Amino acid sequence: MQDIDNRELNRMLQQAFDASTKIYQERGFQRRIGFGRRPALVSVDLANAWTRPGNPFTCDQEAMDNEIMPGMQRLLKACRTNGHPVIHVTTAYEITDRNAPFTDMGLWHCKIPIEVVNLNDRALWAIDARIAPVEGEYTLLKKRASAFHGTGLGGILRAAGVDTILVTGVTATACVRTTICDGLADGFRTIAVRECIGDRVPGAVAWNLYDIDAKFADVHSVDECVDYLDSVGSTRMAAE
Amino acid sequence: MQDIDNRELNRMLQQAFDASTKIYQERGFQRRIGFGRRPALVSVDLANAWTRPGNPFTCDQEAMDNEIMPGMQRLLKACRTNGHPVIHVTTAYEITDRNAPFTDMGLWHCKIPIEVVNLNDRALWAIDARIAPVEGEYTLLKKRASAFHGTGLGGILRAAGVDTILVTGVTATACVRTTICDGLADGFRTIAVRECIGDRVPGAVAWNLYDIDAKFADVHSVDECVDYLDSVGSTRMAAE
Amino acid sequence: MQDIDNRELNRMLQQAFDASTKIYQERGFQRRIGFGRRPALVSVDLANAWTRPGNPFTCDQEAMDNEIMPGMQRLLKACRTNGHPVIHVTTAYEITDRNAPFTDMGLWHCKIPIEVVNLNDRALWAIDARIAPVEGEYTLLKKRASAFHGTGLGGILRAAGVDTILVTGVTATACVRTTICDGLADGFRTIAVRECIGDRVPGAVAWNLYDIDAKFADVHSVDECVDYLDSVGSTRMAAE
Amino acid sequence: MQDIDNRELNRMLQQAFDASTKIYQERGFQRRIGFGRRPALVSVDLANAWTRPGNPFTCDQEAMDNEIMPGMQRLLKACRTNGHPVIHVTTAYEITDRNAPFTDMGLWHCKIPIEVVNLNDRALWAIDARIAPVEGEYTLLKKRASAFHGTGLGGILRAAGVDTILVTGVTATACVRTTICDGLADGFRTIAVRECIGDRVPGAVAWNLYDIDAKFADVHSVDECVDYLDSVGSTRMAAE
Repeated sequence: MQDIDNRELNRMLQQAFDASTKIYQERGFQRRIGFGRRPALVSVDLANAWTRPGNPFTCDQEAMDNEIMPGMQRLLKACRTNGHPVIHVTTAYEITDRNAPFTDMGLWHCKIPIEVVNLNDRALWAIDARIAPVEGEYTLLKKRASAFHGTGLGGILRAAGVDTILVTGVTATACVRTTICDGLADGFRTIAVRECIGDRVPGAVAWNLYDIDAKFADVHSVDECVDYLDSVGSTRMAAE
Repeated sequence: MQDIDNRELNRMLQQAFDASTKIYQERGFQRRIGFGRRPALVSVDLANAWTRPGNPFTCDQEAMDNEIMPGMQRLLKACRTNGHPVIHVTTAYEITDRNAPFTDMGLWHCKIPIEVVNLNDRALWAIDARIAPVEGEYTLLKKRASAFHGTGLGGILRAAGVDTILVTGVTATACVRTTICDGLADGFRTIAVRECIGDRVPGAVAWNLYDIDAKFADVHSVDECVDYLDSVGSTRMAAE
Repeated sequence: MQDIDNRELNRMLQQAFDASTKIYQERGFQRRIGFGRRPALVSVDLANAWTRPGNPFTCDQEAMDNEIMPGMQRLLKACRTNGHPVIHVTTAYEITDRNAPFTDMGLWHCKIPIEVVNLNDRALWAIDARIAPVEGEYTLLKKRASAFHGTGLGGILRAAGVDTILVTGVTATACVRTTICDGLADGFRTIAVRECIGDRVPGAVAWNLYDIDAKFADVHSVDECVDYLDSVGSTRMAAE
Repeated sequence: MQDIDNRELNRMLQQAFDASTKIYQERGFQRRIGFGRRPALVSVDLANAWTRPGNPFTCDQEAMDNEIMPGMQRLLKACRTNGHPVIHVTTAYEITDRNAPFTDMGLWHCKIPIEVVNLNDRALWAIDARIAPVEGEYTLLKKRASAFHGTGLGGILRAAGVDTILVTGVTATACVRTTICDGLADGFRTIAVRECIGDRVPGAVAWNLYDIDAKFADVHSVDECVDYLDSVGSTRMAAE
């Protein structure tokens, strides 16, 4: 990301956001959906191919190490203490030959290099050890960008009485944004956790979070989300 | 199935079907959807927990050994010879504690004993060795009855240009029937392969295939399906 | 239905069910899912083409007039009194030329005569006047058998905090059964209301309710459902 | 959009895109999915509430009148001449009281002002007269951002043998982008038609098309799309 003046980019984007916000506010967009009563954490693609160096999917390592991972650790602690469901989402494929007559990659490999994440190469799609799943947490294997598309996530959350999802992970441009859009469409209060959402190209986190906050989810800090998770107590208890 | 006179049951069911057929024919039901140009085989839950003795899910073993498995072997041969996609579907769960606050079983364990098929117990959900998947075939892990519900199957088939699905497996009552209904709803020509569909209770195959043929799929014999698979040639070639 | 001795058919079916029940009970099927805390009524295809004489879709009129309609009136009253959501589901199509190059009928007209229900012919797909929707109730237009498939029903119910659906309507073989299967798969406690589910061919209600109760929903009487609806109070209040 | 220097914004965005493109190219993103053999046009929310002045949803009128509408007219002509399916998508709601205990708006009104598009107010959600649907074209009523989510679109397109969708309409941020993401996920070759995609806030078209082209669809000009539509001939003929 050396070839662009990030400060200048951010300044210019902020100007664009300010102009947009004026329009959105006049029109009644950017409303607050609010936190519900039974949250779950949905953490998207924080697996080694995305969180560690050396892969086409590797994301911005500075943000990963200094913001996303520490933030995730705090969120996980709050979920585990209070008994809130945690879903770790990852992505991998059984048939990664791009010339195969058919493949579980569908057509996505025609746009991005998903053929590098083969199911047999478990280290690539395993959740990063810094936020390793514990017993009772669910690791969802998806095939598309959204954690809801072509998965049972909506049904699993509804069965558990969940009404609110806190979404984290990578990338803002693709898997996080589509997960958020689908989560809202499926009837969940969607919250994007600001510091825990990353990408690999300049500006992408900023403009995607801006769009998301305007139309699909409330963007909140880790601090606000941890406070919320601590305040609602356990899902199990709420159900009784 | 010792407590019922199966011959008498079948005779009575046939009378009911004849009466129904009269009504359906007068009304314009029971139409033929026909075979399309690019088939795929979708084989549902022919995994050990269903195909072998000793499990709550074990199906009628006589039909399994004498009809379903030999029929499947012929269908697989025809698919492999002609390059048609094969999807082996199976079912297993990560969280099988029925008292867990949330689980990938959703609510289905509240109706049937799916907690017996844990993902760690691979032998249970592995496809029966008599019809073991070969390279290039896809083993789809589902969580619900239908092979389409909460999976990427529709997208995978569409990406491969498939327009027709031949459905086999168990059980007629649940996973086969829901897969067929969803396959048609998702825009595929659906064919139920008569001898390759089983169940574990008396009458269930007969009445479910009757309903299916009236409204959701054409029921065909293995012979007819093998002839069809041989006649259409490979998907790969058709795409070129 | 004059050509078959219904008493004899029912006696024989009961024998088959008894034999199946023995197997299911030994294996741990036929469990009770139970009523939840926030119900909604999902009434499937009780529109004129299905409820009144003279259409290919016309169902058994005796059951319609003497059981389904009176039962529905009691359920609706209980929902309206207690503020429970009511979804009236119906089916109609914009493009009903069977030779059109593409149509919202998808491929279903290749099996059943859905081309008779054109969107312009509102009288056909309007909900039966005996159970006419009132303000605040939702009339959902579907295109496939299931009220969930290709509709926003799951998301709408989740957004409203609904955890339980009482399903009624026609036909047991098709739209009711697929709605129930999908409802469970999407994470809702599914209840089939026995007297309010009909069909047009002999035996179909009995064997479909049998399958449903074994694997997908609890079958309950109108009496039991009305008691339940009265006992849980309003969704709106529960949410506050 | 008066408060921001659009030329300066676009210059800065272009610098960000250039830096991102370098990373994407090194990593194997931004691949071309290509045109398939059977296209359909999916035109999103070009209904009066979005295309005409005076509504909260009104989009940038200069782009609408000078680019989107003329481009759409050319695309429609090419589809109609060659017999390609056209789907006009619009959005409206039955229950628009934001305090209703349940509504077909789900939770989206908690973020944006969708309560202004009531089904009874047909003029608002009718397709703009400049691109009015003709017989044989389908007007799809959706409830969420994506034209695929909670609709039968995927099944309808598959049933028609469509393998490629050309997506147009508004807004880039929401309904167009989610439709494109879902279209690819459902197995369709997705093409974004550059001049026919609009929004209502500065920069949004640019950054959303950039993200889309990197990961979800090929962005092409109207000229390129018209050439393609003319080159593939009719779906009906291709099917024979």
